[in-house]
Amino acid sequence: MPELRKDPITGRWIIINTDTPKGPDQYEIETQAKKTTTCAFCPGSEKMTPPEITAYSKVNREKNGAGWTLRVVSNKFPALQVEGDLDKSGIGMFDMMNGVGAHEVIIESTDHNKEIPDRKDEEINDLIWAYRDRSLDLRKDKRFKYILIFKNYGFTAGASLDHPHSQLIALPFVPKRVVGEMEGAQAYYEYKERCVYCDMISQESSEKQLTICENKNFLSFMPYAARFPYETWVIPKEHYSDFAQINVELVNDLTSVLKETMTRLKSVLKDPPYNYIIHTSPLDNLTRDDYHWHIEIMPRITKVAGFEWGTGFYINPTPPELAAKTLRETKI
Amino acid sequence: MPELRKDPITGRWIIINTDTPKGPDQYEIETQAKKTTTCAFCPGSEKMTPPEITAYSKVNREKNGAGWTLRVVSNKFPALQVEGDLDKSGIGMFDMMNGVGAHEVIIESTDHNKEIPDRKDEEINDLIWAYRDRSLDLRKDKRFKYILIFKNYGFTAGASLDHPHSQLIALPFVPKRVVGEMEGAQAYYEYKERCVYCDMISQESSEKQLTICENKNFLSFMPYAARFPYETWVIPKEHYSDFAQINVELVNDLTSVLKETMTRLKSVLKDPPYNYIIHTSPLDNLTRDDYHWHIEIMPRITKVAGFEWGTGFYINPTPPELAAKTLRETKI
Repeated sequence: MPELRKDPITGRWIIINTDTPKGPDQYEIETQAKKTTTCAFCPGSEKMTPPEITAYSKVNREKNGAGWTLRVVSNKFPALQVEGDLDKSGIGMFDMMNGVGAHEVIIESTDHNKEIPDRKDEEINDLIWAYRDRSLDLRKDKRFKYILIFKNYGFTAGASLDHPHSQLIALPFVPKRVVGEMEGAQAYYEYKERCVYCDMISQESSEKQLTICENKNFLSFMPYAARFPYETWVIPKEHYSDFAQINVELVNDLTSVLKETMTRLKSVLKDPPYNYIIHTSPLDNLTRDDYHWHIEIMPRITKVAGFEWGTGFYINPTPPELAAKTLRETKI
Repeated sequence: MPELRKDPITGRWIIINTDTPKGPDQYEIETQAKKTTTCAFCPGSEKMTPPEITAYSKVNREKNGAGWTLRVVSNKFPALQVEGDLDKSGIGMFDMMNGVGAHEVIIESTDHNKEIPDRKDEEINDLIWAYRDRSLDLRKDKRFKYILIFKNYGFTAGASLDHPHSQLIALPFVPKRVVGEMEGAQAYYEYKERCVYCDMISQESSEKQLTICENKNFLSFMPYAARFPYETWVIPKEHYSDFAQINVELVNDLTSVLKETMTRLKSVLKDPPYNYIIHTSPLDNLTRDDYHWHIEIMPRITKVAGFEWGTGFYINPTPPELAAKTLRETKI
């Protein structure tokens, strides 16, 4: 009999196939084939991107010139535009506003082929610092209510360029998914007077069934009601609601846990396409007892079909405790 | 400047690319290539499926034998199982229950290659009657709270078999997406004392910008805040909250509008993969003034990536009024 599991934050039910769990080799997973055509994100092509917003470097360099190790530029095809006013208005019964926002691309490495598992720790540290720096800078613009940081890897996961990159979008409102998550966490807090994520970490610290790896400050684990096979969360063990409050010690520990997690996922799922998203608090309420920032990593190895669209809930063919065991035990 | 449009039911914001709208030929659309291997749904293979639940036929026939025109069977790989009790229980801080439910497959035609645009009206009528008959029958089981009817067409849309088929899932709870939709419609009703869908139909009846086709009883149109390019809704013009209350006159008109819509989509998007879902009321409250059943058709021609997962809102590269015009004016 399949099992229905409820996500304690959103209230979403997930169907978990506990009878005939699907192994990692039974998924049809997109193979990553890097194209070798001219790449706008490779060193030497700096003029092909919009002007840089910021860049990290170990040498003296000119803006938009060579010598960078990480670069942040505006998205050439932005979903939103940074200039202008919102101009909210009504069209008959409907509401609209101008698409004001920021859409930035973080070019993570000079090396076209160097993804997170292949990088030195200090390179991954820099990526996390870049996420933080851009978050703090964009907060100064009072039109923005939420900053979303995410990475699409692989064509199936929506990446249109294969040079290592992340994206950052600043939005003029708090998106629906975030509102739902905040409300769910708040409802749990009101009832229990404890953070739901802290409770998950605490339960996992004794059971260890869902853990992939951990160190002093970070835990990598699979949620009990995982929507997707091999869905993995990376979370600070202590309670922090705002990602951008991360400090040197935390960045170092996050790098270590994130790198090991991505390496294990790459090994078991043969370099799968994935999305990861930093889940953090909206800008109007950054320090809160009921919410706990974390990263959600979603390998894209199944299709989302009519059933999922129609219900908003998901069928997961591999129980997370089994997926976690496979990841934990794989040799890397 | 892109436009942000708010869905009046769910409150979801959609980014519409009104600056550089994408034309139908600019999408990378999966080509449908029917496989010609042995098919369990073709006539003569009746023994390869689980026993039939019901079948339509114009001749005298034996159960599970030849002579059918439409057949309903249990899903061979069900997401949920019909036997057993829910046995709700707690696992530490988490909630689970047994995966009790029904999962049926409707084999729509004897012809492996005959999709909706290629069928006679009476064949499409039968499909709609089958949706209704199975809904009414499953309602008798008091464990079920919601019945979801949907169709996946094409590999990208999650179809694992290419013989024309639909699916039906009876669930022991009302899924989250449906709860959200009901709450949104209810909030609108409480504020305006009118059904939000009736208001959409009324506004469209004077503006006609989003219409694809219509007849006396049904309208096919694109929602103002469409999530996906070419997303299309088919809705009864009069207020009905329960799909299964459909009658002979309505079935005939639905067939005509559905067939024309699917034919126009096939023509413009070159036979795209799609999902459609019947959105109808939960079983515990079937007759309601605030909700209006309808079918949502979602061509699957874009990828859902980190941005959509992270925010729950969508980027639509083709404004619905342009997509509707293209569909309305294409020669069929």
